Amino acid sequence: MAVTRILGIDPGLRRMGWGVITVDGSRLVAVAHGVVTPPTDAPLAMRLNHIFDAVSELVRIHQPDESAIEEAFMANNASSALKLGHARAAALLAPAQAGLPVAEYAARLVKKSVVGTGAADKAQVAAMVGVLLPGTKATADAADALAIAICHAHHRRARSIGSIA
Amino acid sequence: MAVTRILGIDPGLRRMGWGVITVDGSRLVAVAHGVVTPPTDAPLAMRLNHIFDAVSELVRIHQPDESAIEEAFMANNASSALKLGHARAAALLAPAQAGLPVAEYAARLVKKSVVGTGAADKAQVAAMVGVLLPGTKATADAADALAIAICHAHHRRARSIGSIA
Repeated sequence: MAVTRILGIDPGLRRMGWGVITVDGSRLVAVAHGVVTPPTDAPLAMRLNHIFDAVSELVRIHQPDESAIEEAFMANNASSALKLGHARAAALLAPAQAGLPVAEYAARLVKKSVVGTGAADKAQVAAMVGVLLPGTKATADAADALAIAICHAHHRRARSIGSIA
Repeated sequence: MAVTRILGIDPGLRRMGWGVITVDGSRLVAVAHGVVTPPTDAPLAMRLNHIFDAVSELVRIHQPDESAIEEAFMANNASSALKLGHARAAALLAPAQAGLPVAEYAARLVKKSVVGTGAADKAQVAAMVGVLLPGTKATADAADALAIAICHAHHRRARSIGSIA
């Protein structure tokens, strides 16, 4: 089975986590991860440009085969939902424009894939990412992005096994 | 005073109106307008790609100097706000990536600039767009986009007069 490189994205207008892993059968290896912080005092168009440019650059540098992003949680109020919508669109447009498939996973499924329960908190997710990808010292936002990449690794493998059966 | 070409955008995930006008002092001329309809049954990433590609193409074809987009209205529910946020980001990223300034105007200000009252309805906006840009036969969404371009034409002119005084 070929090695697949996955870019995981945890979108946000203030802090956008990202993580790249490789999948080789059941073997997962962390490649790189980090957090993009658009200038908070800049106009919206510039902040979205910052996110789009940063993710485009990550795609160029790390050459992922596939990408995955967290599905938007249902925000309590319309104002935060609108902001998150902008940030998500800018983040997912970059790999989509580069021709990469962009998978979307609900936050509960991401947590379940990594911790075993959809109700896990951020610290539990970060701890399990450290176990599944030994040697990774990712902060919360980057750990979430790596968790999204791991979730995609599990689900694309499940799909692949499914297609053999 | 040089002729300025303005691209107005009325964002939406199902129907995105656009309109291009030229401004030469107080003289406004309609250049082109239309509506972009992303495939409604396609995955979100493809729909956003469609919007981004369409607006990028409009920028290439019409070579606007500036662009303007309606500020997001405060949607009643988080779900529609999220969708609108995605569509807006895809639409405004295209001119921003091409290096154009992207001005944002509240819906009330757009209506006030065109009809004279912020409480005008869609039909009144379309009728006044037809008066201000004679010969234009724009449907509702395209008329809204032309109204946004007209609003920007007025406000950039006001700023320019302001700087002379």
